[in-house]
Amino acid sequence: MQHDKESHDLHHFDPSKVSTIIDLVDQFSKTAVFGGGKIGRAFEILSDAKKDGAKIFCSLAGAMVPGGMRLVIGEAMKNGLIDVLVTTGANITHDLIETFGVSHLTNVSHKNDQELREKGIDRVYDSFVHQDGFPTLEDNMQTLLMEFFEEKKIDDTLITSSYELLRWLGSKITDPHSIVKIAYENKIPLFVPAIADSILGLQIWLKSQFHKIIMDEMKDLTYIQDVFAESEKSCALLVGGGVPKNYMLQASLMSTKEYEYGVAITMDRVETGGLSGATLDEAVSWGKFTWEAPKVTVYADSTIVLPILVTAWIQNQQK
Amino acid sequence: MQHDKESHDLHHFDPSKVSTIIDLVDQFSKTAVFGGGKIGRAFEILSDAKKDGAKIFCSLAGAMVPGGMRLVIGEAMKNGLIDVLVTTGANITHDLIETFGVSHLTNVSHKNDQELREKGIDRVYDSFVHQDGFPTLEDNMQTLLMEFFEEKKIDDTLITSSYELLRWLGSKITDPHSIVKIAYENKIPLFVPAIADSILGLQIWLKSQFHKIIMDEMKDLTYIQDVFAESEKSCALLVGGGVPKNYMLQASLMSTKEYEYGVAITMDRVETGGLSGATLDEAVSWGKFTWEAPKVTVYADSTIVLPILVTAWIQNQQK
Amino acid sequence: MQHDKESHDLHHFDPSKVSTIIDLVDQFSKTAVFGGGKIGRAFEILSDAKKDGAKIFCSLAGAMVPGGMRLVIGEAMKNGLIDVLVTTGANITHDLIETFGVSHLTNVSHKNDQELREKGIDRVYDSFVHQDGFPTLEDNMQTLLMEFFEEKKIDDTLITSSYELLRWLGSKITDPHSIVKIAYENKIPLFVPAIADSILGLQIWLKSQFHKIIMDEMKDLTYIQDVFAESEKSCALLVGGGVPKNYMLQASLMSTKEYEYGVAITMDRVETGGLSGATLDEAVSWGKFTWEAPKVTVYADSTIVLPILVTAWIQNQQK
Amino acid sequence: MQHDKESHDLHHFDPSKVSTIIDLVDQFSKTAVFGGGKIGRAFEILSDAKKDGAKIFCSLAGAMVPGGMRLVIGEAMKNGLIDVLVTTGANITHDLIETFGVSHLTNVSHKNDQELREKGIDRVYDSFVHQDGFPTLEDNMQTLLMEFFEEKKIDDTLITSSYELLRWLGSKITDPHSIVKIAYENKIPLFVPAIADSILGLQIWLKSQFHKIIMDEMKDLTYIQDVFAESEKSCALLVGGGVPKNYMLQASLMSTKEYEYGVAITMDRVETGGLSGATLDEAVSWGKFTWEAPKVTVYADSTIVLPILVTAWIQNQQK
Repeated sequence: MQHDKESHDLHHFDPSKVSTIIDLVDQFSKTAVFGGGKIGRAFEILSDAKKDGAKIFCSLAGAMVPGGMRLVIGEAMKNGLIDVLVTTGANITHDLIETFGVSHLTNVSHKNDQELREKGIDRVYDSFVHQDGFPTLEDNMQTLLMEFFEEKKIDDTLITSSYELLRWLGSKITDPHSIVKIAYENKIPLFVPAIADSILGLQIWLKSQFHKIIMDEMKDLTYIQDVFAESEKSCALLVGGGVPKNYMLQASLMSTKEYEYGVAITMDRVETGGLSGATLDEAVSWGKFTWEAPKVTVYADSTIVLPILVTAWIQNQQK
Repeated sequence: MQHDKESHDLHHFDPSKVSTIIDLVDQFSKTAVFGGGKIGRAFEILSDAKKDGAKIFCSLAGAMVPGGMRLVIGEAMKNGLIDVLVTTGANITHDLIETFGVSHLTNVSHKNDQELREKGIDRVYDSFVHQDGFPTLEDNMQTLLMEFFEEKKIDDTLITSSYELLRWLGSKITDPHSIVKIAYENKIPLFVPAIADSILGLQIWLKSQFHKIIMDEMKDLTYIQDVFAESEKSCALLVGGGVPKNYMLQASLMSTKEYEYGVAITMDRVETGGLSGATLDEAVSWGKFTWEAPKVTVYADSTIVLPILVTAWIQNQQK
Repeated sequence: MQHDKESHDLHHFDPSKVSTIIDLVDQFSKTAVFGGGKIGRAFEILSDAKKDGAKIFCSLAGAMVPGGMRLVIGEAMKNGLIDVLVTTGANITHDLIETFGVSHLTNVSHKNDQELREKGIDRVYDSFVHQDGFPTLEDNMQTLLMEFFEEKKIDDTLITSSYELLRWLGSKITDPHSIVKIAYENKIPLFVPAIADSILGLQIWLKSQFHKIIMDEMKDLTYIQDVFAESEKSCALLVGGGVPKNYMLQASLMSTKEYEYGVAITMDRVETGGLSGATLDEAVSWGKFTWEAPKVTVYADSTIVLPILVTAWIQNQQK
Repeated sequence: MQHDKESHDLHHFDPSKVSTIIDLVDQFSKTAVFGGGKIGRAFEILSDAKKDGAKIFCSLAGAMVPGGMRLVIGEAMKNGLIDVLVTTGANITHDLIETFGVSHLTNVSHKNDQELREKGIDRVYDSFVHQDGFPTLEDNMQTLLMEFFEEKKIDDTLITSSYELLRWLGSKITDPHSIVKIAYENKIPLFVPAIADSILGLQIWLKSQFHKIIMDEMKDLTYIQDVFAESEKSCALLVGGGVPKNYMLQASLMSTKEYEYGVAITMDRVETGGLSGATLDEAVSWGKFTWEAPKVTVYADSTIVLPILVTAWIQNQQK
């Protein structure tokens, strides 16, 4: 029996060979490229990208902070697995809520969502936040926004953007676990392309009713295109879909370069035709990835996959 | 055998009773609330909402225009099934490409996406657009944006928003099938909360490099909150998730009102915890829907469900 | 701009052209091959198969009878859309429950499944059946099985199979809406490859404790392979996955023929590697389909898609 | 702010606390019950079940052996995570192919499935098996089946079942990695309720054309119900859906007991109403689980989740 040149006998995942998370990912790497195999492939691509000097651009959708991924993201930033971050207003809102001292809750028993409404508890699937958290957010943010406005305004007008605001915020807040803080300290550009689409956005809007604060979407487009243009080689790490995915990939459109490595983690389906579920190969037709770019999509919940990848990444650096 | 008061014998879908699309939806309504039954329920909720005087706010994500849904959306707007529209930059970009005379293509044979790249054809699942379409878009948009800028600028600066731009565009373009045009003519507020996240956004950005055009996210927040506040009763029709879904629902947060009817069409899953897949009941905890609001989520491809709902709606009006 | 030979401008689904279900399917056919487009494609393939003289082999998994699809399946059989049927024990169990006069219920309000347990109501998602239905099933089936045994036994032993039992049952029961009855009357071979995996199977098992009734899995394998071998051309209509899908497709393995047309309706995913979600192309590697066979998979709930296909099929025949 | 009694502050998954797979699962346990959190919960339930003296009944659907999970399943059986196994004919077929010396392949480059067909390579997503493997299977199985027949026949007739055949096979084959062998050696009852639905089934059928071998579905029903009845306490570990899931759960129907612990791993959806995606709570209404039974469903690819659970289980035993 003649095998194809590259083909080889199937390696079965061997639990007896696994002690650490690196071992886990290693066993995944060696087996068939079903779900587990794709995690292995993803880790290889990210490692190869880094060795090759590529910057890792991470888009992050989904309720990652309410879902308990705050430290995972923070560690990924501190350890070079995220060099540029594009995320949702919700993730930054929930990061700031914790920054200002309000914890999310889990294990909140409730009969239904009406009961939660009456108790003043907002639900994000199985994570919860007491509405008392929002006045706290408001108090802090209104003060900080005032300071930001005073510091940066020109002739009583401040034309700014998510990138500028979050960089400034990162320099002011002190919570060492804050995504915003860690991005600032590690010089990781942080973008929230639809910041108006969040409670943080509503806070800015509130301030803008009394002071001329303008959130100019065009400014961030300049910044992210510059960041992409300055990155010699680029790897896309796409966690979920939505605006963060598309916004990050389109940063390449005006340049002559493409992303050269690609890892996606998503539960979205290809077959509905939407961008969130679109394959990384489809992005080749648009000139967002090179055809030769190693690419893999892991079809799984990112609260499973991301902690594995990040932990393996850290263990690998400590070897 | 004692049944519960409201329960009744299962009606099996009866094909022999179906001639029109109204009949189809009617048979769906009568049977078990699996996928088909939910389409029936959705139609009932939308009809009840309209009879009750509610405005229908529609959020529209996914590649609806490349997927052949342009006329479906247009007819929904003309026939009162959409009173307010929140959508993605991509859908408007693809609407404008057709407005400016470039058709999408289907049935494009290709070996892989690299071949498409070489031929200059961009792919959206099974729909395609020749890259020649983008210079056409650019020519038209740069001219129109110039005119918009000249007409609206104050002291050489234009601070505007998606809502303002698209309303103005609707007054200028002539294609009777254009979503932008139909929205304008039917006084349907049209919002694109992340307009920078699209090729249309890149066109605005290009113009903004030479003329001071500022896309202020805060402006649209004011408009959509005003539209919601002025709507006595509101129904949410959520097609897909993402920014359009959240943006439209959060318009209720600063008001004392909630959405009172809800229909969602999505393939997103509840279990990953993200907003796109979140149930309409979860939104009750946030005060976005009333608990009593009739609500249903149809878990299916919107290119199947939306044409059925819109066609039945039109047939129903012509009875 | 040179298009590929077969490609053409995208046709947008036009609600104003739709009166009947044939029109609906026709508009789906003409547009992009997203979800709706695939329904159109599926109808074309089934129509072409029939015109070409192919027999349509239908595998049917999922809770179709509890989901209100009993008449849809019956009409499909009466109208030549199903020539051979492979399904689950559950669907036949629920068909027989109705045959024996017990209706399923919908709209049963309940706090939780424990309350249903206490009330003696079994739940199938949003469809329900009172446990009183099972004694009725038992009374009828034990009597019928006794008669079957007496009539067919040889030396006090009956070696039989799902195919033989259901054909005999079809000749005895009188409910004109019964799938089992309609299969019998229309000479449609009916297979339940895992009949032991159902309450009907438990009924047979009960009888087998007192009388020597043997359900020989090998017998049905002979029958289905014969049916396939005698079919000059064959079309597979796969509704859901599981044992029915694989069993029906493997009927081709021992022959020199393959299925020449293929339509699948499923929500299962390709990426987990299981047979339920496997593409029809993958089946080519196994010799189950010809490579040239027209094939499409509709990724949607079959309680939406099947009623549309069956109704359009009937309308088409009545033209 | 008053929290509910059981609720507590959200613990964020902390990569810095993770060295081993036990640590990974422990961090998952502590965080929000999104995907990762459910893996943590699953491990707790399985551990508690075992401590409580429950037998773990595992149903196993999906292409687990082609997907590289053969050793994972074997180790689970050796280490008490699987006490009873119900699986598909395909998994046993692929286990036996390796038993008889033919490896699966990965990384087989191919243009399309027609090319694989021409090369005689069968595909299971990203795993492959050369058709040369099937004659090897046939040679071995025909010889073994002959021996089985001669040894067990009564008056030239053998009435048997999957349970009997596989137990006998397990006593004959020598491959220490074989699932069939490991089941035999560890006295783990192994059931394949639809054995005819597989290539192994076709091998039995082939032999049955020349020798009177009868696979009686009723026999296995007796065995599995006895196994369930003899198990003082029972835990269901459901990997995938289909016949294995239902068959294993229905083993409780004729008894007065229910499963008292439940863990499911699946990508199937609840909303289509089918049994594969049905919640474990729904099974309470049927009397298959107690209402009080701790239960969790992990919505993820089992080739990701099962290796993690099995490895953590083994590490935990070696502590």
